[in-house]
Amino acid sequence: MKLPLKGIIPPVITPLTDNDTLDVKGLENLIEHLLSGGVHGLFMLGTTGEATSLSYELRKELLKRTSELVKRRVPVVVGITDTSMDGSLKIAGYSAELGLDGVVIAPPYYMPIAQEEMREYLENIVPRLPLPFLMYDMPGCTKMHMSIETIKKAKELGAIGVKDSSGDMSYLYALIQEFKDSPDFAVIAGTELFLPETILNGGHGAVAGGANVFPKLFVDLYNASVDRDMEKIAILRDKVMMINNTIYNVGKHTSRIAKGIKCALSVMDICSDYMAMPLRRHGKEERKKIEQYMEELTAIMT
Amino acid sequence: MKLPLKGIIPPVITPLTDNDTLDVKGLENLIEHLLSGGVHGLFMLGTTGEATSLSYELRKELLKRTSELVKRRVPVVVGITDTSMDGSLKIAGYSAELGLDGVVIAPPYYMPIAQEEMREYLENIVPRLPLPFLMYDMPGCTKMHMSIETIKKAKELGAIGVKDSSGDMSYLYALIQEFKDSPDFAVIAGTELFLPETILNGGHGAVAGGANVFPKLFVDLYNASVDRDMEKIAILRDKVMMINNTIYNVGKHTSRIAKGIKCALSVMDICSDYMAMPLRRHGKEERKKIEQYMEELTAIMT
Amino acid sequence: MKLPLKGIIPPVITPLTDNDTLDVKGLENLIEHLLSGGVHGLFMLGTTGEATSLSYELRKELLKRTSELVKRRVPVVVGITDTSMDGSLKIAGYSAELGLDGVVIAPPYYMPIAQEEMREYLENIVPRLPLPFLMYDMPGCTKMHMSIETIKKAKELGAIGVKDSSGDMSYLYALIQEFKDSPDFAVIAGTELFLPETILNGGHGAVAGGANVFPKLFVDLYNASVDRDMEKIAILRDKVMMINNTIYNVGKHTSRIAKGIKCALSVMDICSDYMAMPLRRHGKEERKKIEQYMEELTAIMT
Amino acid sequence: MKLPLKGIIPPVITPLTDNDTLDVKGLENLIEHLLSGGVHGLFMLGTTGEATSLSYELRKELLKRTSELVKRRVPVVVGITDTSMDGSLKIAGYSAELGLDGVVIAPPYYMPIAQEEMREYLENIVPRLPLPFLMYDMPGCTKMHMSIETIKKAKELGAIGVKDSSGDMSYLYALIQEFKDSPDFAVIAGTELFLPETILNGGHGAVAGGANVFPKLFVDLYNASVDRDMEKIAILRDKVMMINNTIYNVGKHTSRIAKGIKCALSVMDICSDYMAMPLRRHGKEERKKIEQYMEELTAIMT
Repeated sequence: MKLPLKGIIPPVITPLTDNDTLDVKGLENLIEHLLSGGVHGLFMLGTTGEATSLSYELRKELLKRTSELVKRRVPVVVGITDTSMDGSLKIAGYSAELGLDGVVIAPPYYMPIAQEEMREYLENIVPRLPLPFLMYDMPGCTKMHMSIETIKKAKELGAIGVKDSSGDMSYLYALIQEFKDSPDFAVIAGTELFLPETILNGGHGAVAGGANVFPKLFVDLYNASVDRDMEKIAILRDKVMMINNTIYNVGKHTSRIAKGIKCALSVMDICSDYMAMPLRRHGKEERKKIEQYMEELTAIMT
Repeated sequence: MKLPLKGIIPPVITPLTDNDTLDVKGLENLIEHLLSGGVHGLFMLGTTGEATSLSYELRKELLKRTSELVKRRVPVVVGITDTSMDGSLKIAGYSAELGLDGVVIAPPYYMPIAQEEMREYLENIVPRLPLPFLMYDMPGCTKMHMSIETIKKAKELGAIGVKDSSGDMSYLYALIQEFKDSPDFAVIAGTELFLPETILNGGHGAVAGGANVFPKLFVDLYNASVDRDMEKIAILRDKVMMINNTIYNVGKHTSRIAKGIKCALSVMDICSDYMAMPLRRHGKEERKKIEQYMEELTAIMT
Repeated sequence: MKLPLKGIIPPVITPLTDNDTLDVKGLENLIEHLLSGGVHGLFMLGTTGEATSLSYELRKELLKRTSELVKRRVPVVVGITDTSMDGSLKIAGYSAELGLDGVVIAPPYYMPIAQEEMREYLENIVPRLPLPFLMYDMPGCTKMHMSIETIKKAKELGAIGVKDSSGDMSYLYALIQEFKDSPDFAVIAGTELFLPETILNGGHGAVAGGANVFPKLFVDLYNASVDRDMEKIAILRDKVMMINNTIYNVGKHTSRIAKGIKCALSVMDICSDYMAMPLRRHGKEERKKIEQYMEELTAIMT
Repeated sequence: MKLPLKGIIPPVITPLTDNDTLDVKGLENLIEHLLSGGVHGLFMLGTTGEATSLSYELRKELLKRTSELVKRRVPVVVGITDTSMDGSLKIAGYSAELGLDGVVIAPPYYMPIAQEEMREYLENIVPRLPLPFLMYDMPGCTKMHMSIETIKKAKELGAIGVKDSSGDMSYLYALIQEFKDSPDFAVIAGTELFLPETILNGGHGAVAGGANVFPKLFVDLYNASVDRDMEKIAILRDKVMMINNTIYNVGKHTSRIAKGIKCALSVMDICSDYMAMPLRRHGKEERKKIEQYMEELTAIMT
């Protein structure tokens, strides 16, 4: 994997036909959809990928098939966040066996732990990781907003980047500044709306959930940002805002974003919209809204 | 298992010699220590038991050995909280095979879910549970403070009780009131300090972490509460407060309580104080303090 | 004022006819209602008294009339919580001029300040207070849950007690334990449901919002708690729970408790239900429910 | 006042010689410092201005002198946030008498209120306001993150803009998008780091605390943003980041930013560094660090 990791790396949703069964054809469709959209890498088993809801068997099958389908056309990084070191290492080991490119790790997330405890944990787990690793800040799920000091510690231990999904742009900017003299260390936005700011200010890419649905839009926005083409950025950014205001905004609860993405992909006949437990796919009424929104969005995307 | 579940049910710590190895002799010592102290049941694989930090293999070994050691002298309930339904059902299934008595379930805890989503999840998982189940409210770890309505839904689906570790006594009282006409449904305090209040006001017991160390103290306090012996309660409660102010109060971070309990048991030569990752056992300095405190506490316990 | 402050001290609501006008007759009715119910003191200008919503002129008028109406039959303490020291000292000074008995102070509540900053603030303001003072822990409004160390500092500086409205019973118990050897220092529950626990475990009283409506109920519960009459406590406590489940439970938003109390007093023809801005009194529909609940409650109170 | 309000509008600190005394000479120095730096307006009595810590007398004196010193060279808007409508209207009325330009209002901040209650409050207070008004989102102090719907309601009632100090850039972008077709309505960043993003994406200005110290830097960054001069933005933005990492980063607690600004101004001999209670100015050690940082910063500013 060429460092630093760069560009649009979708947090790939996991297509399912039921709680324990991969939607194999859907996964194939999805990966071709993403790669033909020009994405620069894939992030499997992230939050949007419902990783923590899946059995280990299913996670392994997903990785195996992904590896076979991608055929090394782009780098694939794999979320190994778990509450137990054992679980993290199992997925990391399997990723290495498959020849995937890296792993992504967030704090163990059941018991609240302190920054200092997280740093100690990294000292323990990092020597056991068989692949390059990125850090993943996701306080909404893990209850820990990793301090800059914790990320610095991770870098000392070998981290090749950080994905920030905190939604806290001051933090994202602080990360960029902290690591600006480390050319191989990637600072990647987890909040897709912040893609242009990230690139314009020295960051490297975005793990954009919306790129599951509209990969080319995000790739274009990335390129416009690299080119500092402010007019093009403005036009594309408005389209990203529209996704926010439409398919992410159907239904209640935090889960509506993940549900909206899967539903949109189902409307596009790419894959099933089945959500792993504890979540449920959108109902008829919500799906109808998504269908209408997808018509509107598809019209403006081209 | 006789309903309602009653009395002192320690959240048994998991004795370890290293991150992947059970301290088998320690577990035997611990179980004898607890049963000779008169506890009314055991809660394995709870938060204090570091369940989420352990591999599934280790969890299974713990349950198998516990089952063999307890020999049905008291009921054993098992925490099956997981982020995936698969993980929960695996532990539940294994508990059933071993002939254990019940399972304890908290919300899936990675993605923030809504009360409504939790109730839907219960509708899905409960029919698959092979054993009676209790609900477990633990918002500090799961990010969800289950509403009374959610617990009512669980009861409709068959729950035999609820363990409240929210620390929110208004909520605990609301639970007791809600279920006062359901003689088989247990309301169990997860905050050990609230044991007498729970019993005096119509609740059924406590999952008291401190009962790992001083089982008889908590059993005595339970009995005094059942007898409404206010003077005895006052004396014993002061001793419980002392545990709070001593062995729970060494070191920093939330994890100091679990570390303190394991360290105290190690000082008593019952089992190892090894903590599973991401945590680390107390250092020398902290251990020294615990040793001193244990001397003082042991003196007043008798 | 005899120390420690003891018993039922209602946080007296402020009867208003509009945003800037005291309901003078209502105040007279209310005070007689409270004193004939046997309350042990009055707490004016607390959270339930909508202090921070009132102009200083109105606060002064309220205190003047209260002083004239109470005629020293019971001690009167006055909330002086403000964001500016000037505001706090103005109300404190006026309370002293009127010969009232003490003041009650919580942290300045606009800017988030640290425990250390609060302790420094106490060092500055306490020497300027013309009356004995109690501390008031109210994190839901002030954003600061004062540490035990901060309350200890306040006591060193002369505080005669603490009122705990955090809802955190572990904290309340820690306060009781900390100050158990200080016979003149009062630990007062701000959560009315915790009155019996407070008294049974060594605390001194309760600032119970519901005592505005049913003063005798709370006085009886206080006395039963002092007498350790567990059966009577159980009966009276159930009635307190019923208030919670009825008049506090009409409408949405945190403000429903204050609105419910004023509405109930209006239904009893004691005073107007007008709420100072930014709040509004209950609408017709809510009032109707309160009327029904008041019938039920009145029936069981006697 | 020309609409929309635009540019750099510092939240002017309040120079004090002690808790109740304005540093009159310091105020004069400060205003000349700001106006000669080219700022487009002044925001008096904001959070950085310690408004809520000041007596009303002092607030009035500050406004009177400011009015006399500014002599209408730039618009002056005044924070009227208070817990009581009376307090807000007093400051608003006085601002109008002095011929100042507008007022800035945040939710009443003692009792937690709901969005719906805030909207009702606006319906009540807005007709009584004698001057144009802006909304102020400051959840860290007021406990309420005003919804887009609440801001829309304010605009319907006549608001001329919103200042967003939530630190939540997704929200800031949503505000810009919501009001992009309202040419007279200003969306102003309260997080100074977000100035370029605000302007580049269609917002209007920044209330930048750091502009108290380095007004020209922020004015230059504003102009570069208006000109979409990405290279210049990058250079100036780095300087803003340096302020963050130096004078805002001395000492502990949230208050260190306000203390750092006042201390820096004192080091520049502009005004006293006295902080109103409950805060205290930086101690010797902190001041020494600020002195060193100011030397470094001054060197790079020119």
